[in-house]
Amino acid sequence: MGVDLRSMLNPKSVAIIGASQNPEKVGHIILQNYINSGYAGKLFAINKDAESILGVKAYRHIGEIKERLDLAVIAIPAPFVPQVLEECGKAGVRSTIVVTAGFEEIGQKELQDQIVEISERYKMPMLGPNCLGVIDTRARTDTLFLPTYKLSKPGVGYVSFISQSGAAGSTILDLIAGEGFGLSKFISYGNAAYIDESDILEYLMNDDDTKVIIMYIEGIKNGKKFIEVARKVTKKKPVVVLKGGRTSVGQQATLSHTASLAGDYQVYEGIFQQFGFTIANDLNDLLYYAKTLVSEPAPKGNRIGIITNGGGAGVITTDAVGYTRELKLAELSDKSKQLLRKKMPPLVNIRIPLDLAGDAGGDRYETAVAAMRDDPNIDMIIVIALFQTPGADSGVVAKLVHFKADIEKPMIVISIGAEYTQIHNRMMEESGLPVYDSPSAAVKALAELYKYYNYKGRK
Amino acid sequence: MGVDLRSMLNPKSVAIIGASQNPEKVGHIILQNYINSGYAGKLFAINKDAESILGVKAYRHIGEIKERLDLAVIAIPAPFVPQVLEECGKAGVRSTIVVTAGFEEIGQKELQDQIVEISERYKMPMLGPNCLGVIDTRARTDTLFLPTYKLSKPGVGYVSFISQSGAAGSTILDLIAGEGFGLSKFISYGNAAYIDESDILEYLMNDDDTKVIIMYIEGIKNGKKFIEVARKVTKKKPVVVLKGGRTSVGQQATLSHTASLAGDYQVYEGIFQQFGFTIANDLNDLLYYAKTLVSEPAPKGNRIGIITNGGGAGVITTDAVGYTRELKLAELSDKSKQLLRKKMPPLVNIRIPLDLAGDAGGDRYETAVAAMRDDPNIDMIIVIALFQTPGADSGVVAKLVHFKADIEKPMIVISIGAEYTQIHNRMMEESGLPVYDSPSAAVKALAELYKYYNYKGRK
Repeated sequence: MGVDLRSMLNPKSVAIIGASQNPEKVGHIILQNYINSGYAGKLFAINKDAESILGVKAYRHIGEIKERLDLAVIAIPAPFVPQVLEECGKAGVRSTIVVTAGFEEIGQKELQDQIVEISERYKMPMLGPNCLGVIDTRARTDTLFLPTYKLSKPGVGYVSFISQSGAAGSTILDLIAGEGFGLSKFISYGNAAYIDESDILEYLMNDDDTKVIIMYIEGIKNGKKFIEVARKVTKKKPVVVLKGGRTSVGQQATLSHTASLAGDYQVYEGIFQQFGFTIANDLNDLLYYAKTLVSEPAPKGNRIGIITNGGGAGVITTDAVGYTRELKLAELSDKSKQLLRKKMPPLVNIRIPLDLAGDAGGDRYETAVAAMRDDPNIDMIIVIALFQTPGADSGVVAKLVHFKADIEKPMIVISIGAEYTQIHNRMMEESGLPVYDSPSAAVKALAELYKYYNYKGRK
Repeated sequence: MGVDLRSMLNPKSVAIIGASQNPEKVGHIILQNYINSGYAGKLFAINKDAESILGVKAYRHIGEIKERLDLAVIAIPAPFVPQVLEECGKAGVRSTIVVTAGFEEIGQKELQDQIVEISERYKMPMLGPNCLGVIDTRARTDTLFLPTYKLSKPGVGYVSFISQSGAAGSTILDLIAGEGFGLSKFISYGNAAYIDESDILEYLMNDDDTKVIIMYIEGIKNGKKFIEVARKVTKKKPVVVLKGGRTSVGQQATLSHTASLAGDYQVYEGIFQQFGFTIANDLNDLLYYAKTLVSEPAPKGNRIGIITNGGGAGVITTDAVGYTRELKLAELSDKSKQLLRKKMPPLVNIRIPLDLAGDAGGDRYETAVAAMRDDPNIDMIIVIALFQTPGADSGVVAKLVHFKADIEKPMIVISIGAEYTQIHNRMMEESGLPVYDSPSAAVKALAELYKYYNYKGRK
């Protein structure tokens, strides 16, 4: 069954150990974030001196709380963590998140072993130490100790994100929010002393609110356990993985970060490929791939139709298709050719990429998308909309969003530019239409979509 | 000597042929853009019916203007262009820009040959047809017929941009403006019927306000002529080139776009490599590479120092260095190690990547950058600043901008995130500190910087 993370992600009652009146302290920020996110369960603050913090009643010890506690979030200096965990165990706390750093990652292995022993003794699952904790957008749970004004928090969605690194995690969260597509869960697991990446992967595999999993990992705690889960998870949903420490210099760097023995990347890559994981090579890839995997249906084949209002962008996108191993450029069916020739102005060449020209507005896009939607020679559609051109405006956006509602083929957009463009991109993203700011990223995302469903179909 | 483009880029007098009172017409937008950009020379409108347009006196024919004209911008339907060019020639106009489309790119080769013949007969250099024309930020010249609200126009800078494609050109202009680094000249040359990419390259090679040239090309008009220029230009300044039609499917697409016979990319790539061009593979690469090439000094070697406030981003950046052929991770000198050990908190591991931890503020960045600046083992510095972390704020920006003013090594920043981050990135960009939103892009930019100066040093 694996570890049940419900008491962490969706707790009915939470105690913040190390809650503080000082707004710069981690314990203060965590309590504040719980309050801000609209958490509906019971909140308790543990602090030796205060009567109450941020309007929440404070207790000196966790033992003084006479209610069942689903979760204790621990934000106190490392040397005091064992004693507090012992108290949590005695008080019957169901699970803990230790955000405190200063354990194995700086050589304090004994201290870490000690907190694992206590957690195991009380059968009390622990996340961390040295982690950011969790977000569950539906349960309105947020243990992140980062000031709210510094990062946008994503809305409710279907992508869940596992990160070994806290800072990389918060950066990606910020990007997800900025791009306007939603999050289901975020789990930062740090040193993986008790709960590791395999436990989390297994939990998310069975979570109905998670359609795509993205993960940043530096090492794998238990290879055999990971392979067991890896074998199953991609049959149910796609997993995009970015591995830190892929090169020998990178491996040295992971050692002092999360104490991970990164190991030979060839081995990891072999496992990822064998089990149909989607492999990312940079932080941004995680988003690029997740965006299309979470919103697009399985493609029937690998033939790409391209619609554009700028010839150069059409050529560059066509080149990107030509460079993939997986995809090929579609050819219009005779029926589509006749239809388009009849409806398009004479300057438009009837071929793929279909260049609608710079004065193209919503109507020309509508004709083009409808033709490609109905064309049996085309499996996936890339729509390039350059909003610097005279014809492209919110009328184009309206048509594309309208089509997106009932098209059964993958359809994504490339749109590149500054302010005016960003406004339109945001509209499309929020209507569930994936938008890419680079032709090669868009094409790679479709190639990964194709690869994933191709893998899944073979299983 | 090549073609002198001064009469196009910095004309003392301009006639807009096809100027119109209808704000949707190209001729109207061009006149409007000249007025908006603060052009100080004399403006004339040519229109059969109007007395004046946008406050500019209108003439029925160019022959009626009794002053010397440096430039005529021609925005009338293709079939009328030959006659108007003939009139320009008779009136002694020094040069023309034909923005009108509908020539060789749609099979009208004869019409195109006709306008070339007229231009040659009058020794009147012509840009286009089927082009966007030019921008010169210093001369306040702007012939682009794109509505101002749709794209941000870049400020004054030292990057000049040659584009065969109009739409790709305007997209990149918009991005340059959005990123906050400046432009010198933009020249969109379309079908290259008279003035071609080699003429423009040669002109910009000798232009003091151009420090870096970026270009998007689909074909090369005259290979021998191009090689002659290519041989010389990179000895003076870097050229970043993106070639459309690198794959066989892409080559098909260029045919119907700019009527370019793209030819085998292997041949192009060979020429680009032989003459030290910086090769881009996507639109965004043009900016990524130009940004560092225009602001950074020649590196003394290929050893990269990395400073970070997020462990994961440090690892990913280290991996990116490990994946390049050109760069390697630096090692701190003993002197730096001692200095940093003394000044940094105990949690900081004294090694590269130097992880300052999430609570690092300006002071810790100051110590780290100063140490790497003075360390003879380090040739280039990458500073990662994740503004989601508790410690990073405008205090970090202030320190980095301060150092940038007198550091003699290349130093660039990686900073990834949404709104709060973007505000800080903008401050750094506007202070001349290149900022990248992806570790791999930043590392590739330094690799290209190193390659360019390595090429130049060998010549």
